[in-house]
Amino acid sequence: MDRIPILRMGETLLVTIQVDMQDQTALALQDDLADRIAKTGASGVMIDISALEIVDSFVGRMLSSISGIARILSATTVVVGMQPAVAITLVELGLSLEGVKTALNVERGMAMLAAVRAEHRHGG
Amino acid sequence: MDRIPILRMGETLLVTIQVDMQDQTALALQDDLADRIAKTGASGVMIDISALEIVDSFVGRMLSSISGIARILSATTVVVGMQPAVAITLVELGLSLEGVKTALNVERGMAMLAAVRAEHRHGG
Repeated sequence: MDRIPILRMGETLLVTIQVDMQDQTALALQDDLADRIAKTGASGVMIDISALEIVDSFVGRMLSSISGIARILSATTVVVGMQPAVAITLVELGLSLEGVKTALNVERGMAMLAAVRAEHRHGG
Repeated sequence: MDRIPILRMGETLLVTIQVDMQDQTALALQDDLADRIAKTGASGVMIDISALEIVDSFVGRMLSSISGIARILSATTVVVGMQPAVAITLVELGLSLEGVKTALNVERGMAMLAAVRAEHRHGG
């Protein structure tokens, strides 16, 4: 059981990360997500990290990397559910999660993605 | 990291099971779910088991038990994403998942919960 499931909810793909990420799991998740975005035409990716008590530079890079891949495939990524202690540690470590949008919880993340979608439609 | 995160999406609580369930994890999940249903007044619980390659009698009982607890707290439980091989094994083992509603995927599960909610409102 080394693949993280990706749930489709309308135009959004939802991933909840519950285990400490190993290199293999992280790479598989990137591949699977890229694949699913391409296949479904999803416009949003939501990654819940509420179960993580530690976000180190490896996980931080993975989140940035997923966000970058999704952007190229024209999907917006939002990371939700970060524990306050994790946010504090990230800042103390100087990790900025560059290019990664965050929201407090799934509902606010969904609202953020809906807003981005509406903007794109009006813009294009 | 032995607690499974519960995500709130409107009136539905979403759980994705990604790890083989141990007794402690299963009990913690039951407690947490009962607690969250009571606190949020959620009317639906969705449990995604697409990552599980085996559903034995222990997991089967846990799903029935969560479903029963939720029902008492007036919430409907739907189990989604069961792999075809898992369904075959369940039937071969004579496990019936008594009282547990199932749906093919998250979207159909959401539709099922919406239908149940509409029915309750019209009925009551």
